[in-house]
Amino acid sequence: MSEVRVAGVGLTPFGNSPERTGRDLFAEATIAAFEDASVPREDIEEVLYGNFMGEIAEHQGHQGPLMADAAGVDAPATRYEAACASSATAVRDAVARIRSGQADVLLVGGAERMSNLGTGGATEALAIAADDLWEVRAGMTFPAAYALMAEAYFETYGGDSEDLAHVAVKNHANAVENDYAQYQREITVEDVLEAPRVATPLGLYDSCPISDGASALVLVSESYADRKGLDASVAITGSGQGGDRMALQDRETMARTPAASEASEKAYDDAGIGPEEVGVAEVHDCFTIAEVLAIEAIGLASEGEGIAAAREGRTTVEGEVPVNLSGGLKAKGHPVGATGVSQLAELTKLLRGDHPHGDRVEDADVGVAHNAGGTVASAVVHVLEVVA
Amino acid sequence: MSEVRVAGVGLTPFGNSPERTGRDLFAEATIAAFEDASVPREDIEEVLYGNFMGEIAEHQGHQGPLMADAAGVDAPATRYEAACASSATAVRDAVARIRSGQADVLLVGGAERMSNLGTGGATEALAIAADDLWEVRAGMTFPAAYALMAEAYFETYGGDSEDLAHVAVKNHANAVENDYAQYQREITVEDVLEAPRVATPLGLYDSCPISDGASALVLVSESYADRKGLDASVAITGSGQGGDRMALQDRETMARTPAASEASEKAYDDAGIGPEEVGVAEVHDCFTIAEVLAIEAIGLASEGEGIAAAREGRTTVEGEVPVNLSGGLKAKGHPVGATGVSQLAELTKLLRGDHPHGDRVEDADVGVAHNAGGTVASAVVHVLEVVA
Repeated sequence: MSEVRVAGVGLTPFGNSPERTGRDLFAEATIAAFEDASVPREDIEEVLYGNFMGEIAEHQGHQGPLMADAAGVDAPATRYEAACASSATAVRDAVARIRSGQADVLLVGGAERMSNLGTGGATEALAIAADDLWEVRAGMTFPAAYALMAEAYFETYGGDSEDLAHVAVKNHANAVENDYAQYQREITVEDVLEAPRVATPLGLYDSCPISDGASALVLVSESYADRKGLDASVAITGSGQGGDRMALQDRETMARTPAASEASEKAYDDAGIGPEEVGVAEVHDCFTIAEVLAIEAIGLASEGEGIAAAREGRTTVEGEVPVNLSGGLKAKGHPVGATGVSQLAELTKLLRGDHPHGDRVEDADVGVAHNAGGTVASAVVHVLEVVA
Repeated sequence: MSEVRVAGVGLTPFGNSPERTGRDLFAEATIAAFEDASVPREDIEEVLYGNFMGEIAEHQGHQGPLMADAAGVDAPATRYEAACASSATAVRDAVARIRSGQADVLLVGGAERMSNLGTGGATEALAIAADDLWEVRAGMTFPAAYALMAEAYFETYGGDSEDLAHVAVKNHANAVENDYAQYQREITVEDVLEAPRVATPLGLYDSCPISDGASALVLVSESYADRKGLDASVAITGSGQGGDRMALQDRETMARTPAASEASEKAYDDAGIGPEEVGVAEVHDCFTIAEVLAIEAIGLASEGEGIAAAREGRTTVEGEVPVNLSGGLKAKGHPVGATGVSQLAELTKLLRGDHPHGDRVEDADVGVAHNAGGTVASAVVHVLEVVA
């Protein structure tokens, strides 16, 4: 089985650029990825691309071939969609293809253009990641859904809004040095608590922004990397996906995310490691409560302890295992289709040491990425390791 | 490398049922597939699902987990989208996962609800499979695009509307015995030529209808099939995908479909066979000209000879290699996301002999499915063989 190496990563800055098309954003990310990888475009065998709301935001389906065009690549292309976990599902299939020997060189990425819809329009578009018949038509948006999950968590395990505020404060602090982040500025616990409420107990600063952006990875087989003498020291060694009932009402509890637990167990199994070996993580903090649920699901905190980990700063840049050194979705931004692959891009840079926070984790050999779709009806976890 | 077996197939009748939801349709197809397969739902490891216009037709993204729910399956789920080739791309990844040993039992399918949009609304929704900026905004719909391709074909190789009419006549005749087909009635060449023009040289009867429907396959590894003593005599032995520039204007010619040629070459290579071994084919006849282009691309007619093959009846039920014995998209119907998998379901039934036209191809060991997205910017070809 061939090992999957990250030959190169590319990102656009995340932010609001409503005048730029998705293809424009993706082209920029892929130019950066090809430059980083030193892999010629002609070697790409397939393009695997994640996008969520292109039909609504850009009146554009069938984005696979369009994005291959934008990347200057003449190869078959497929679009993957699993709401906010879209591009992580593309990575999963890329891993399968390289491991099985079907491909040696793949371009994997994602993009999302959202801000052209406005905040209200984008929130409405995002809502269709929930169950239209049983949730959306009842008025549920994602801030409301995660507010329900936060309340369920507080009732089951304790904690409050002030505890959650530490997640936002940490992620903003992490983003200050990240030139690709949407918000390069610090905030305080008071800022978070005094911000307008979006859906109690979540306020504006508990929520990730509406973002435009793109991300790309050039993934290659170990044998291709060796043959070409590439500097590809980071490997994707574990990949797992989990699923749950689509609607919150159909689940046993809203205080946990079993799909993410399933995904992380599979990914760790696949990599042959355990969570205790993880040195750095990027997790899906679409809302502050989501990061608490995520670190429990991937085993960086035990059940019900995620809130204390947040409160006590266990996941800050100085903590035991830093989480979201990029700034996370909260401060780096969350262009939905780009997010999953962007997490792997950030982790690769961290593990290689060419990241603003690279020094902090210079001893880390293992990074984990946690990407969730909807109210975690879909979850994808990847393990990255320094291998060369 | 594990061989991929078709354990069971399921279809809904294709037609117009605007009051039925996508999940309702998919549930019906999967009930049939599980019954046919004799595989318990608990054994399904992942759901791979194709859909094109769910965001527009049903205000529903993130359909993977929703469709796992509808199928009664507790497993991770991903949605694949490549316009009208959506569910064939899902099959491709299922093949990769079973071959690589990552999975033994997968549910693969697709569904589309379209007729609730009305013919105009559905045509508008379909248009976003083309390039929004350079084609759709210029007023191009798919009948117009395929009309351009037909004109280019006529100019390059000869032929006329009357030649194309034979494709529609053949496919309607084939569908008469197919209880799953939208149109179980014969038409004549005169009917086709006298029908209202949609986009010259294509008329109403050169065009597939707007359809609702779903399709499902239970795919298993050979070892699982053997262990469970399943009756799974048909294998997917070849899988290939091809790509082309998204917009027609960017291509060298509109008279050929190189993406489909690429897909079929890869699929034949993968299966280790050539087109001369094919005994029966299901191809993507969204318009009559598309079937002509398809049979050339998959090697059942040489370049420029597809039109003569149609005119001379070489692909009828009595011809050398029957094409679209199901009725094809033209008469069976074309619920976009369901079509790719439905082609494999029809071929499986043909190769097993439990199909209205099964007797006609009882000597056939090899079937080929050709599924196209957009103006064939995406193409997927699968080879099925009787192996047990």
